[in-house]
Amino acid sequence: MPAYSTNMRLKFPILALTLEIITIILFAVFVDYDDGKHGGHGAHNTTHHDEKTEQDPLTLYPMFQDVHVMIFIGFGFLMTFLKRYGFSSVGLNLLLAAFALQWGLIMQGLWHLEDGKIKVSIFKMINADFSTATVLISFGAVLGKTSPVQLLIMTILEITIFGINEHLVAEILGANDVGASMIIHAFGAYFGLAVARMLYRPALRNSHENDGSVYHSDLFAMIGTVFLWMFWPSFNSAIAESGTDQLMAVTNTYFSLAACVLSAYAVSSLVEHKGKLDMVHIQNATLAGGVAVGTCADMDIGPFGAMIIGFVAGIISTLGFKFLTPILASNLGIQDTCGVHNLHGMPGILGGIAGIVAVSQNKVSCHNYLSTPAISHLRHSSLRSAAMQGAALASSLGFALVGGTITGLIMKLPFWGQPPDQNCFDDSIYWEVII
Amino acid sequence: MPAYSTNMRLKFPILALTLEIITIILFAVFVDYDDGKHGGHGAHNTTHHDEKTEQDPLTLYPMFQDVHVMIFIGFGFLMTFLKRYGFSSVGLNLLLAAFALQWGLIMQGLWHLEDGKIKVSIFKMINADFSTATVLISFGAVLGKTSPVQLLIMTILEITIFGINEHLVAEILGANDVGASMIIHAFGAYFGLAVARMLYRPALRNSHENDGSVYHSDLFAMIGTVFLWMFWPSFNSAIAESGTDQLMAVTNTYFSLAACVLSAYAVSSLVEHKGKLDMVHIQNATLAGGVAVGTCADMDIGPFGAMIIGFVAGIISTLGFKFLTPILASNLGIQDTCGVHNLHGMPGILGGIAGIVAVSQNKVSCHNYLSTPAISHLRHSSLRSAAMQGAALASSLGFALVGGTITGLIMKLPFWGQPPDQNCFDDSIYWEVII
Amino acid sequence: MPAYSTNMRLKFPILALTLEIITIILFAVFVDYDDGKHGGHGAHNTTHHDEKTEQDPLTLYPMFQDVHVMIFIGFGFLMTFLKRYGFSSVGLNLLLAAFALQWGLIMQGLWHLEDGKIKVSIFKMINADFSTATVLISFGAVLGKTSPVQLLIMTILEITIFGINEHLVAEILGANDVGASMIIHAFGAYFGLAVARMLYRPALRNSHENDGSVYHSDLFAMIGTVFLWMFWPSFNSAIAESGTDQLMAVTNTYFSLAACVLSAYAVSSLVEHKGKLDMVHIQNATLAGGVAVGTCADMDIGPFGAMIIGFVAGIISTLGFKFLTPILASNLGIQDTCGVHNLHGMPGILGGIAGIVAVSQNKVSCHNYLSTPAISHLRHSSLRSAAMQGAALASSLGFALVGGTITGLIMKLPFWGQPPDQNCFDDSIYWEVII
Repeated sequence: MPAYSTNMRLKFPILALTLEIITIILFAVFVDYDDGKHGGHGAHNTTHHDEKTEQDPLTLYPMFQDVHVMIFIGFGFLMTFLKRYGFSSVGLNLLLAAFALQWGLIMQGLWHLEDGKIKVSIFKMINADFSTATVLISFGAVLGKTSPVQLLIMTILEITIFGINEHLVAEILGANDVGASMIIHAFGAYFGLAVARMLYRPALRNSHENDGSVYHSDLFAMIGTVFLWMFWPSFNSAIAESGTDQLMAVTNTYFSLAACVLSAYAVSSLVEHKGKLDMVHIQNATLAGGVAVGTCADMDIGPFGAMIIGFVAGIISTLGFKFLTPILASNLGIQDTCGVHNLHGMPGILGGIAGIVAVSQNKVSCHNYLSTPAISHLRHSSLRSAAMQGAALASSLGFALVGGTITGLIMKLPFWGQPPDQNCFDDSIYWEVII
Repeated sequence: MPAYSTNMRLKFPILALTLEIITIILFAVFVDYDDGKHGGHGAHNTTHHDEKTEQDPLTLYPMFQDVHVMIFIGFGFLMTFLKRYGFSSVGLNLLLAAFALQWGLIMQGLWHLEDGKIKVSIFKMINADFSTATVLISFGAVLGKTSPVQLLIMTILEITIFGINEHLVAEILGANDVGASMIIHAFGAYFGLAVARMLYRPALRNSHENDGSVYHSDLFAMIGTVFLWMFWPSFNSAIAESGTDQLMAVTNTYFSLAACVLSAYAVSSLVEHKGKLDMVHIQNATLAGGVAVGTCADMDIGPFGAMIIGFVAGIISTLGFKFLTPILASNLGIQDTCGVHNLHGMPGILGGIAGIVAVSQNKVSCHNYLSTPAISHLRHSSLRSAAMQGAALASSLGFALVGGTITGLIMKLPFWGQPPDQNCFDDSIYWEVII
Repeated sequence: MPAYSTNMRLKFPILALTLEIITIILFAVFVDYDDGKHGGHGAHNTTHHDEKTEQDPLTLYPMFQDVHVMIFIGFGFLMTFLKRYGFSSVGLNLLLAAFALQWGLIMQGLWHLEDGKIKVSIFKMINADFSTATVLISFGAVLGKTSPVQLLIMTILEITIFGINEHLVAEILGANDVGASMIIHAFGAYFGLAVARMLYRPALRNSHENDGSVYHSDLFAMIGTVFLWMFWPSFNSAIAESGTDQLMAVTNTYFSLAACVLSAYAVSSLVEHKGKLDMVHIQNATLAGGVAVGTCADMDIGPFGAMIIGFVAGIISTLGFKFLTPILASNLGIQDTCGVHNLHGMPGILGGIAGIVAVSQNKVSCHNYLSTPAISHLRHSSLRSAAMQGAALASSLGFALVGGTITGLIMKLPFWGQPPDQNCFDDSIYWEVII
């Protein structure tokens, strides 16, 4: 590790202020309030039956706030499990998310200009929060080993690439991914893993003394886990067609998560010494059901179908933490701090595959077709639709791996203030900490 | 204490996986999405004025999420006050609640099949969360002294018995209990106390070294307290008739809780050494106003009436913690870890009695009658209605005590991995804990 | 410091019980449920277009609960940063807020009686929570140096004075202050600073050993910060005109806060030793954007305009913590424990000034005029409106400084159980604490 300075005094303020000023200028040029015309509430919500009665523009607001809590409390506190990295976990989570939601609004909105403007509705704010999630998932993979400057650079690049992939998947391929198993969870996880691979630190092969939890840091992390678990039905249903589809998305996610808890606890006890439960599994694998049911959430898979998906996701995720994470670290040089591969990566792929199967079986409700009329000719056969789902999964993984690799190479440049090995997982390198 | 193994490696995974698989099969047979027909949104919500305009099936969703937060954050963190039992408190709370909501949906739904199916609406999900609350209350009475296997067994039995009593109280007796002072709070408390009596441990008569809090564990518990306190108006109004009744339930609960805080703080200072406040009282007795106003919440008792109920509840509950809990433990062999008798038991009975008085004074709004037209002939006299309220309270207490005793006897069987006395209140017996 | 007793055993219970009993009597005389007539849902909400379709009285309920979370979790946990004062921070916050919302409902409601009654709607409950915020802001200025009895006295007086100023600003001057930059934030801050000045303790000029944080207390404080940050859009929009104005208030606050995070982090790093981030700045200055955009929140300032306000607020607030707070303490005798001058005081004034500018530029939407038809003649010129905004700011500061000074003098009386210097910032003087 070369002896470049980790002092952030100039690098970080200059980058943060410059980014914010550029963002404000872009907002001045491109962003305006939603005036309720032009279907600005989001394409999914302005179907024929909504047009008859003018809808309150804040109908989605409670769901937006649930998603907001997942982003800022959920992701932020989930990562506080490390004994000496809580300030960075919840603090840098706030920094990255606050920037990402601004950047995401532009990167997503530029694909859907109305009269040359991005018109901000609650729907667009939810999508901006969604784009943020990809960055926070990738953050989990490199947690403790990166500087704030590196992370801001990752945010800019990842959001931009996410915007391209999302446009491709949703608009060109016309694939279904209401809860974003593919375009957020799998994408964010494999993007982060590719970055982690580029930033591989051989010296950390044997675990670092700070790369672990203490009793109360594990309790702080449970705040994140439980808020994510509770509000996941909002995440998966927020942009669903209002009415029956949205209720279906809530219901499927609620039961998938409940089933996932039972299987995650059972497998955690089964694989651990003396049948004891492991906090890492409980904090993470209990959420895999929310990830995995995402793509199918608004499809007519039956509550029991959702439960099967959640049940399997809980098993896969727990086994991944126990057996796969050590292999990735030792054999492939991928040091995945939070185990995002187990929580977002594999369950995301499982969700994508479940989506392919469900679409091939015609489980998509007719509303979904209506929402993308321009490509309805693509839907003549469910086989073709299934192929589009497969293409969406492949696209998400491809963009993630290539984009993450390039991003990782840029982040590896030696002047971004990356912490030396011995200061990894330690707040005191970037924060004033009273010992 | 016999030397049976507390190793959960086979017992727990087999039980958890088997229960979940059985549940999924039951869901495949009995559970379907709500399609908005047949009044599936819940009987209370489909009155004449709602039928004119088709209601968004997610109208109750924000209240559902408030209740969800109470169940998973509220109950979970409230119990983290113990210094070495935080993992179990919030972790087993998640496990039990995740199973209980699935089981509760079936146990409640089987009484109200539509075309042979339980049709899941937000209303039914709220009720499933409600049934969960009974188990979590009872969990508080036996906290620290039971294995995960014992607790899953308690969950199955308690939810089943709860379903029977709820059907009897709401459908057969036609009693009012919108905020469930009787059928959830009193029921859950006395069920748990009966179980605790059966599991009496003479060796713990003198307090256990881990049966207490440390500074930060008390702060974690306050997260639970405050979320319960804030969202209790949602709990008491979620299934009220929409419109004026629901607003009344919110208002009554809001003011009852506010008054309760003042009396709980005052009495805590009055009874404690040097007038100091006691965290146990603050964490619990401030919530008694929410419990006690439950039955009357949607009745026209006036905001000041609600405040009187809350004021009295705060006093009773604090005095209970100070004077009654030690007597129950030493004289009756009931070791009530969280003092659920003071938070849910006595305030629940107070709520039931307040309901009898209010009904006898004709404080019930006419909407409530309409919601149960089949039994409107029972309502000719307010005296008869008051008698039904009394019968509902008696039924809830009877089912709780008998059911809890039987459940306790089953849980006492020596092969469920119950912890030995010296390992009570200690996470490390069932969790990987880094010291 | 005279040797008056800090024993609360009689003083506190008698005061608390007496206040609650008086409040219940006042409620019995003056307070009734909202019956949906008389525009009881709040003047802002009963405009012509709402009258056509009868509105659900719980439309504002989700926003009310967001505000509720800010008051009880947000303010409560934000103040837990002190290492030995967490019980008091979150516990006395609950006590004061529970009393303040009851007292505030009366003090605000007496100005708007309908048939001699205060009719409680969700709108009125939001306003009652708002009045509470002023007390909690002032509490931050004197945190650690006052007894529960002193704080209850402050609550009574501050809410009463707040009610007068709010009536003057909103009804007589007809000024806009939807997010209450002036009437809550600036008022609460300068009221608290005036009290702090009166209670000046020369012996604490050199910092007290307990006047600081430890690692986990800073993480508890972040729970407060993040919930305040997330739900601030609800605070600023809750009483806005429903529809486009309310969406505008949400949007402006969302982006102002996001921009504020970037500038607060940047400046924190810029002014700190070795470019490290300081938790005090992150916990507080990231919220200044919510304060400062309050007055303009529902005005057509453009999302980029909101971002500029937030950006500037983040800078001012962070610089205030670094440079101004020490000067206030050493030169002016104002010991501002939480730095409310930096979070609420200066950003509140900034918000008031931004409001004057925006109104002078005709940025107010026409809806706002309609909501106060009685004074529409005042609005002939935007210059006159701007003058009214200026008068509102001056009035808020004037009432705060005079009211705070008088209140501080009353609180200084020696028999309210004020802690001696050496016991400041220490829970154990008023709480049972196990060491």
